[in-house]
Formats: sequence, structure tokens, C-alpha cells
Amino acid sequence: MAPSGVQKERIEPQDVFLLDGEDLSACRVVRSPADLALKVSECQPLFYNAFRDRDAGAVIHSHSPWAGLVTRLVSPSGAAATFECEGWEMQKGLRGKGCFDRVRIPIIANTPREAQLTDSMQQAMQAHPDVDAVLVAGHGVYVWGRDWVQAKTQAECLDYLFRVTVQSAAFPSGAQP
Amino acid sequence: MAPSGVQKERIEPQDVFLLDGEDLSACRVVRSPADLALKVSECQPLFYNAFRDRDAGAVIHSHSPWAGLVTRLVSPSGAAATFECEGWEMQKGLRGKGCFDRVRIPIIANTPREAQLTDSMQQAMQAHPDVDAVLVAGHGVYVWGRDWVQAKTQAECLDYLFRVTVQSAAFPSGAQP
Amino acid sequence: MAPSGVQKERIEPQDVFLLDGEDLSACRVVRSPADLALKVSECQPLFYNAFRDRDAGAVIHSHSPWAGLVTRLVSPSGAAATFECEGWEMQKGLRGKGCFDRVRIPIIANTPREAQLTDSMQQAMQAHPDVDAVLVAGHGVYVWGRDWVQAKTQAECLDYLFRVTVQSAAFPSGAQP
Amino acid sequence: MAPSGVQKERIEPQDVFLLDGEDLSACRVVRSPADLALKVSECQPLFYNAFRDRDAGAVIHSHSPWAGLVTRLVSPSGAAATFECEGWEMQKGLRGKGCFDRVRIPIIANTPREAQLTDSMQQAMQAHPDVDAVLVAGHGVYVWGRDWVQAKTQAECLDYLFRVTVQSAAFPSGAQP
Repeated sequence: MAPSGVQKERIEPQDVFLLDGEDLSACRVVRSPADLALKVSECQPLFYNAFRDRDAGAVIHSHSPWAGLVTRLVSPSGAAATFECEGWEMQKGLRGKGCFDRVRIPIIANTPREAQLTDSMQQAMQAHPDVDAVLVAGHGVYVWGRDWVQAKTQAECLDYLFRVTVQSAAFPSGAQP
Repeated sequence: MAPSGVQKERIEPQDVFLLDGEDLSACRVVRSPADLALKVSECQPLFYNAFRDRDAGAVIHSHSPWAGLVTRLVSPSGAAATFECEGWEMQKGLRGKGCFDRVRIPIIANTPREAQLTDSMQQAMQAHPDVDAVLVAGHGVYVWGRDWVQAKTQAECLDYLFRVTVQSAAFPSGAQP
Repeated sequence: MAPSGVQKERIEPQDVFLLDGEDLSACRVVRSPADLALKVSECQPLFYNAFRDRDAGAVIHSHSPWAGLVTRLVSPSGAAATFECEGWEMQKGLRGKGCFDRVRIPIIANTPREAQLTDSMQQAMQAHPDVDAVLVAGHGVYVWGRDWVQAKTQAECLDYLFRVTVQSAAFPSGAQP
Repeated sequence: MAPSGVQKERIEPQDVFLLDGEDLSACRVVRSPADLALKVSECQPLFYNAFRDRDAGAVIHSHSPWAGLVTRLVSPSGAAATFECEGWEMQKGLRGKGCFDRVRIPIIANTPREAQLTDSMQQAMQAHPDVDAVLVAGHGVYVWGRDWVQAKTQAECLDYLFRVTVQSAAFPSGAQP
């Protein structure tokens, strides 16, 4: 897992934390970087939600502008809500979804500190067992998969869906997402 | 032809399928990758539509957001329709078109599986013999050419036309595409 | 000068035409590529407009989507018109302009063939002696400078001005360009 | 500090001016490039505002289109105003701010010459001691930090906030920034 507060392009391999993959209730770091100034990302318990409850092998957290914008489009107040889309081929990149399914991704309200999202993320996951992502209002998205390949595919397909939903919202005829 | 379900930047030369260029009715793979887990893209019969009926030497299939968005703009319901534009210099990059011609690209409805597009794509090609592309609603575009150079030129010019049509749709004065 | 119809990233140094810099009325190529299939760009007489009437050392012709879009915003019908903007710092990158000046760039109507723009471009240049650019409706822009450095600076600043004008046109309050 | 009027990608290490870091009231260059044609950027006194009044170790000046556009959105006339946003996770990248705080960045009116911004920038900094940035209408943004790492983080987070504010302004429901 990446360290907290380090610009992504400046992270070196030796700056990465190794997490405990055996005891998933412990949320434990098993190897820390030599640089003691580095702290593990505050996303740690959120990632363990996916490791533990969904048997995820990899989790991606993104602050993509399209993810942030789509939460603002759906929930201008930042309250919990649901992103929905339908009719896009890229939905096929999501586990178990076809292009004619209606995709529903939960949006949870943001909290002052990232770790405070742990419970509401877990509840949203339980309420939406058919999707591998949780949006956070004004913040971004957590996406996971059985391995990094599936996590990356799902992250890329979701970002496409967020983007086209945001961009089609500006259509004069008001095409529905 | 590319394998199915492999992230594009991870495809290696040895992962590509060699298609039969002699018997165009057979839609046959003549050499498969050593990795038996790889399957040929489900686009195979769609590419043969262009090889067989248009003597194409290369076909490009793109999920460009601009292609997807322009189908949503023209056909919010996802039904079969026609994309039209006029007055753009980049139209000259399309076979036989000038900048004052009206370009019409058929949009076919999407289907649950890609191979199911084969017949409606063929019919759209017959109805639009003057253009080398078929859009698929909420999905993307198939573009071809006599060789990869022309296929690439046409794909790039079309993507430009899709983009400027989508972006000008947001103009307050409602400039017509 | 670049050859006609070759994808820009595929042009090799030996594909470039050398133009006559002495007799500017002749519009003459003094050295052609060895590859006889290559033809000089049809922009040749348009570039000589700038070489001859403005003592330009370099001309850039761009099909930038922002250039095309801004002509569509200002002149949806494609008729001759004028792009105007005011109040942007980037105007300082244009010869003789400050950020509080009103910049006016002529837009000429497009023609079926590029060489047919020669006379209307020359007239637009005479009517707008204070700027080093001519837009072509639905097409792009010609920009020049005393050398390639100034031509590039002016092309980049203009592209910025076209972009922010197009993007601010979508503002709900209708901020004026 | 960078030289004036040189395209950023063409600046060489030896073209950079070394500023006096001891006597911050002098705004003095202590080493100039060997190339006497180079002049120091006119931003020099503006950077010293941040060095002197805020103990900044690095200042970034950007003409980002999103920065320019957001000033046009907030202040179409170019008058002094304030950019505000709230509810974005990326606000945490700004010194002392959380995602539920309301961020207020002053916008000062532009002036014909950059150095003329010195006094109004200083006054805006005094009026907004809680933020490390000043926007200039139709122009861009000045951002600083205790070192280049913090300056870069704050510049990137602000650009994100400017971008999502501009893009969400086009939402049909009028989501508030």
C-alpha cells in the first residue's frame, strides 16, 4: 500500500507498505519502509473492507475528476445517493454486467478523515453486492477486483462511464444517463 | 486480430491472431497464439463484413468516448439512427467526401453480444455504400480502409467530427452539426 | 513545407519540400523529395501570402478542434465573420497586443479546395494588418511569425484563446468572450 | 527564476536567474545567465511577496486554462472577486483546509504589466492569510509553499478545484461549487 501524502510519481518501490494478507481482520502492516517519516495511507481499513468482505486481491482508489464530478452531478449536496447508468458497452468490463443492465454504484457521504468512511463503505458494499466499487461524494472512487488486472479494467471502465455521464449531462436534449 | 479481453497496452506481438485473407466467407483464424487461454476477439465476423463486402485491408474498432457520446446525442434511446455532419474540413479525410458534403454515418442498435451485430452492420453498410464506418449506439465505431493507413486516417477524422459535434452541441446558440 | 496527405507523425525529414525564399511571387518549390509520389501541400500559395505580404519566416496551419469549434460558435453558417476576445493575459503573446486590447481575428469562408482560399485570405490579411492569423470556418487557422519561435508562440496563445472562448460559452451566466 | 518570454520547454538550466534569498526587501538577482539577451521574468516582485510575507520557499505561476476560466466564471467583467468552493476532498491538499471547509481564493483584477500586480496581490494576501494562492482575472494563478513539494501539491489541488468548478457550472441542475 502506498504511503500517505506522497506525490504519486515520487513514490519509490521501497516506500510501499506490505499489508498482512492472512489475518484480514487485523488491518496490519507487516513491513514498513526504512524511511520512518512515511505513514501508511489512511485508506488502509477501506482497502481491508474489500480484501475481507469481497476476497479482493487489489484495490484502486482514484480522485479522478470524472468520479468527483459525477457525484456532484447526482448529489449536489454531497448526501448519500446512487450513480446509475445504462446502455453503455463499457459496462461489460464490470463483473457480471451486460450493456443493457442498469449499473448502480453507491455514493457515500464524505467524512473529515478517510478512515471514518470505513463503516459506511462496508454498509454500501453490503447493499450493492453486485458491483465492485463505492463512490465518495466530492472525493473519488474505490474499485477492487480479484487481482490487479480486474481492478484496473473495472477502474478504467467506470471512469469511462463517469465521464460520458458527466459529458452527456450537458446535452441540450437532456439525454438520460 | 487482437485477442478478446486483454488490456490493449498488454498485448504482445505473439498474442495476435492471423486471419484467413483468401476465403473471406469462412471467417477463419489460420494461426492462433501459443497461449491457449487467449480467444480471438468477438469482433471477428464484423471485421469480415468489411474485408468481404468492401475489400478492406484493415478495420479499426474504437470505444472512443466521443463516438459513444455522439450516438447518445443523436439517439438517446439507443435505437438505430444516423449521425450527420456538414461543413468540416476534416470530412476530406473520408473517402470521396468534400468539406461541403453532408456526411451520414449509420448508427446501429447495440446487442448483448458483439457477434450479434454482424447482420445489422452488414445491412447498414449496404444502405450507406459511400462511407467506411458504422457506429454502434452507446458502444463505439467500426472504421475500415483499403490499408491500415487509410483506416487510421478515416478513424482519426471521424473521431474529430464526433468530438466537435458533441462539443458544439453545448453551444448556447445551438449551432447545427 | 510538408507533403500533402501524409500523417504528420509519419513525415520524415527527407519528405519535406524546400520552398523558394527569394522570389516570393513565384510560389516555387526548389527541392522536392526523392519519393516522386509525394506532392507539396495545397497550402503552398497560402503560406506565400504570409511570406510575401507580411515578411513571415514561418507559417503554421492547424486543424485544432478549438480553432474549428470557435469558428462554429461565431459563425454557425460558415460565413465570413470575425472572432473577438478581450481581457486575457495570453493576448500578450500576440504581436503588439496587450491583455486589455480587443483581439479580432478574421474568419474566412471555407472553399472546396485549399488553394481557393488564397485570395480571401489575402484580403482578410489586408483588412486585419494588426494580427498574424486567419481562421477558416469549420477548418482551422493559419498563423505566422517572423521566425518559427514567434509563429509557435502565437499559435499556442491563439489556441488557448480559442479554447477558453469555446469553454466559457457554456457558462450559465453567459460570460462574454 | 525563469527568464521572460522563453517557451517553457526551451529553457535550459543555465538560463535560470538566481534570486537573493537573504535580503527579501531588495528583490535582487544575484546571478544572471551568460546570455545577456535574457531578462528575468516580470513576476519577480510578485514572487518576493510570497517569499517575504509568507516565508515561501517556492512560488509557481500558472496560466492554466482552468484557472483563467474559473476567474471568467466568477467575474465575467474581470473585476476583483473571490473564488469559492466547498465539499471537495482535494481541498485537503491546501494548507490547513479540510474537505468541509469553504475555500476562498482572492481574484485580483489584471493590469497591463505583470509587475503592476504587486500591490494588489500583497493586499489580497493580507486579506486572505489562510490560503497560499492569488488568482488574477483572465490570467492565471500564483501559488506558493514552504518548499517546491508543497507548492506543487497546492498548485495541483487548486487546478483540480478550478477544473471541477468550471465543469460542474455546465450541469443542468446548477450544482453549486
